[in-house]
Amino acid sequence: MPVSEQAPIEITAFRWAPPFAQGVVRDLRARWALEEAGLDYRVRLLDQQRPDDYLREQPFDQVPCFTDGTVAIFETGAIVQYIGEQSEVLLPRDPQGRFRAIQWTYAALNSVEPAILNLLLIDIFFVGEEWAKLRRPGAEDFARLKLKRLSDWLGDKPWLEGECFSIGDLLMVTVLRFLRHTDLVAEFPNLDAFVKRGEARPAFGRALADQLAVYAANQPQLEGAAA
Amino acid sequence: MPVSEQAPIEITAFRWAPPFAQGVVRDLRARWALEEAGLDYRVRLLDQQRPDDYLREQPFDQVPCFTDGTVAIFETGAIVQYIGEQSEVLLPRDPQGRFRAIQWTYAALNSVEPAILNLLLIDIFFVGEEWAKLRRPGAEDFARLKLKRLSDWLGDKPWLEGECFSIGDLLMVTVLRFLRHTDLVAEFPNLDAFVKRGEARPAFGRALADQLAVYAANQPQLEGAAA
Repeated sequence: MPVSEQAPIEITAFRWAPPFAQGVVRDLRARWALEEAGLDYRVRLLDQQRPDDYLREQPFDQVPCFTDGTVAIFETGAIVQYIGEQSEVLLPRDPQGRFRAIQWTYAALNSVEPAILNLLLIDIFFVGEEWAKLRRPGAEDFARLKLKRLSDWLGDKPWLEGECFSIGDLLMVTVLRFLRHTDLVAEFPNLDAFVKRGEARPAFGRALADQLAVYAANQPQLEGAAA
Repeated sequence: MPVSEQAPIEITAFRWAPPFAQGVVRDLRARWALEEAGLDYRVRLLDQQRPDDYLREQPFDQVPCFTDGTVAIFETGAIVQYIGEQSEVLLPRDPQGRFRAIQWTYAALNSVEPAILNLLLIDIFFVGEEWAKLRRPGAEDFARLKLKRLSDWLGDKPWLEGECFSIGDLLMVTVLRFLRHTDLVAEFPNLDAFVKRGEARPAFGRALADQLAVYAANQPQLEGAAA
């Protein structure tokens, strides 16, 4: 198991997250990439209330940050790309293969994720608000259009560029998993199979188990439970 | 001027765009990066109604696509990074400098742009809709929070990582320009100066002029103007 106290690679993650977020918090992306690359790492756990100086590491107050003694960076796209450069499993070496994979990381995070997170926010954070009720059908249609475009591209290929899994697939799978509270992905059987194919990778399974194990070990005490 | 019919590099762009989009359509990002790198390029112009097979080049039906005979890619983040690899002006060579710049491309496109585009959509596409009226104050607050985080990070540095301009700054400036219809960026004088510093670069000026010249030359005929 690559989680190791002595590892030179460190990522940040939350000590605990509410149930709707468990299994999709973004340190999962870094964990998964590290598992695919076979790199040991350690985790620095943060409370939901981060220390003020965390903004000097992560200006947007999110997780994960990544350091390995050579670089100190944030943004999962950059972290996963950096890990990818150390693993031919994740990032081809030829210019076209390399930049096709990199292109899909930006597609996942800029062309697909915003439409999907918009729907998630409506369903989780803003549920019950009047504007959210009025907007939801349009937001769902927009997310569905993104899924259709992606499904049409994927066709019957196992991964976005064909036979080989890459950092682009890794990020796209994690983006599509933000819709797990809906049946939207299931409307596109090839996308549904694509997500399941990603989740079936042993490296994904280890990454997910390790994220969830932290939350299980740090379950908040209910107020009054000691009374 | 790097726009050249014989150049091996080709990007796609729109023949015309409505006034609200002129000067912010995403081929500007590729043009700007190419100008900074001193690389000649040619432009393949598309009508707003793209040919069906364009989806085989760009699954999300957007501009620009990029090819140079070595790679054929889409997504401005990937295109700008690829151009950056050919120019020390745009992307440092040392691992930390390189990945700090790359990290800011993802920050621009994933941590900042979605909040900003959300406000732009409310103000331009959905203006007058009831949900948009109800949602606007919250959407503006969220965009402002992103700007505050970015402003706090930037401080009195000229660019996001200090003295040297990079692909991260290039993309962040283009993202902040999506708010030109509001006074939000002006609420943060250092961000306002950051955008103006980017716009003052000669390469930006040439890129913008070339995008606008295409639209000026392809102004749609008004219906009935010939009658």
